[in-house]
Amino acid sequence: MTALPPDFPHDAVMEAATAAADVARSVVLPFFRRGVRADDKADASPVTVADRTAERAIRAVLSERLPGFGLMGEEFGLEAAASPYRWVIDPIDGTRAFITGRPTFGTLIALLHNDVPVLGLIDQPVTGERWIGLRGAPTRYLSALPGHPATRACAQVAAAELSCTAPEILDAPHRPGFDALAAAVRRTSWGGDCYAYGLLALGQIDIIAECTMKIWDWAALVPIVEGAGGRMTDWSGQPLRADGDGTVLAVGDGRLLPRVTALLDTPAA
Amino acid sequence: MTALPPDFPHDAVMEAATAAADVARSVVLPFFRRGVRADDKADASPVTVADRTAERAIRAVLSERLPGFGLMGEEFGLEAAASPYRWVIDPIDGTRAFITGRPTFGTLIALLHNDVPVLGLIDQPVTGERWIGLRGAPTRYLSALPGHPATRACAQVAAAELSCTAPEILDAPHRPGFDALAAAVRRTSWGGDCYAYGLLALGQIDIIAECTMKIWDWAALVPIVEGAGGRMTDWSGQPLRADGDGTVLAVGDGRLLPRVTALLDTPAA
Repeated sequence: MTALPPDFPHDAVMEAATAAADVARSVVLPFFRRGVRADDKADASPVTVADRTAERAIRAVLSERLPGFGLMGEEFGLEAAASPYRWVIDPIDGTRAFITGRPTFGTLIALLHNDVPVLGLIDQPVTGERWIGLRGAPTRYLSALPGHPATRACAQVAAAELSCTAPEILDAPHRPGFDALAAAVRRTSWGGDCYAYGLLALGQIDIIAECTMKIWDWAALVPIVEGAGGRMTDWSGQPLRADGDGTVLAVGDGRLLPRVTALLDTPAA
Repeated sequence: MTALPPDFPHDAVMEAATAAADVARSVVLPFFRRGVRADDKADASPVTVADRTAERAIRAVLSERLPGFGLMGEEFGLEAAASPYRWVIDPIDGTRAFITGRPTFGTLIALLHNDVPVLGLIDQPVTGERWIGLRGAPTRYLSALPGHPATRACAQVAAAELSCTAPEILDAPHRPGFDALAAAVRRTSWGGDCYAYGLLALGQIDIIAECTMKIWDWAALVPIVEGAGGRMTDWSGQPLRADGDGTVLAVGDGRLLPRVTALLDTPAA
């Protein structure tokens, strides 16, 4: 694990990420559980409007405060820059949760340095929970809800709580591996998106295995999970990369990694 | 739908249910996200202790206030009575959600009259949301979170949001029916337990289809969903019964019922 660069603008970056998350919260909250109709067209649905508006607002805050940095989001693509720094944002991670009124979606803000995530923020606007991870530092959890940002010890797969957002995100080539893992753990729970990684960082979940993930889905989660004592890799145990295979594995206890990656490697029958 | 009996003790029942939910909340909250270890034995785990303690506390409140009524709970079984009234309680519905720190479990309190649910209460202690349904009256939603207790119009299965707690609760004989329904709807989301029925009553979800459900899982939900404008039946469209087949179907818009029950009736290939 590389360290932060010596000239890392710590205060400016933290203030920018926090300000952007505050703005996103104020944009997203008025759309939560309001005026969503089952027959809304995708491009005019409240979640789409909330998503696009929040991404614009986040971009405005970040680019005003740190004008030289690159910026990448799901809706509006990449604004390149000469800087080694690049923000990667997802204003509403967990569209299904948002649409159905569950308070388990999140705003994700990550900062990458030479393509390595060095800062990550998860914000849950409804419950007011916020996780902030910084490479090399303990993860912080700012919330009125109980929770301490440290993963728990869990050396045995058989004792582990596994989580995954939805069976639908498991594509066919990866399904046998997931099923083998699910058969070996203590229990599997569903739903959660980024919120589940926040819960793993609070020591409530031991393993998360997902696939078909984009960089804006996982970049913010890496510093949060690792700063709480966990590990994040792809399903082979290799570091996550923007051009990777879309598999994402998080474990609260690194001792789980060899056994979990072996199970996930189960080939199709 | 039968009406409430003319001598229904409305105020005493509402006060008892509310007082019991308040006590349960104060018992359960201190266990949320505290001291849960992956290797806890089932009979000494925090969720089990919270569940048992809350059921005892709920029983104490209800039996002191309305001593003649019957009482049934998951942990301590049935206390029979000569009365036609019977409380049915589940202190922590959504064990997986509670264990993993998700604020989407709930305390369920139902009152049955001659085996028909006439009052239902869902309480979410962490977010402070509470739904109260009374046969023949509009459902109430008491919460600091946004939401209005009325289901939404959705006449077409293709436009519907479907929800189910977990693939694991779908037993083999019912899987083909669920898969046919999931293929026909707009989108499926997972997780939620009783909380998903609360969201259906807020017009956020259109269809919930689950099976292997016990009476304490569904009795409280019926007055809440129906008082918000929805319908609850088994997968055949028949009224739910304690000795039924364990299938539960909720729709926000009753026009969905014939098409949804036809899809759920898909036989195994």
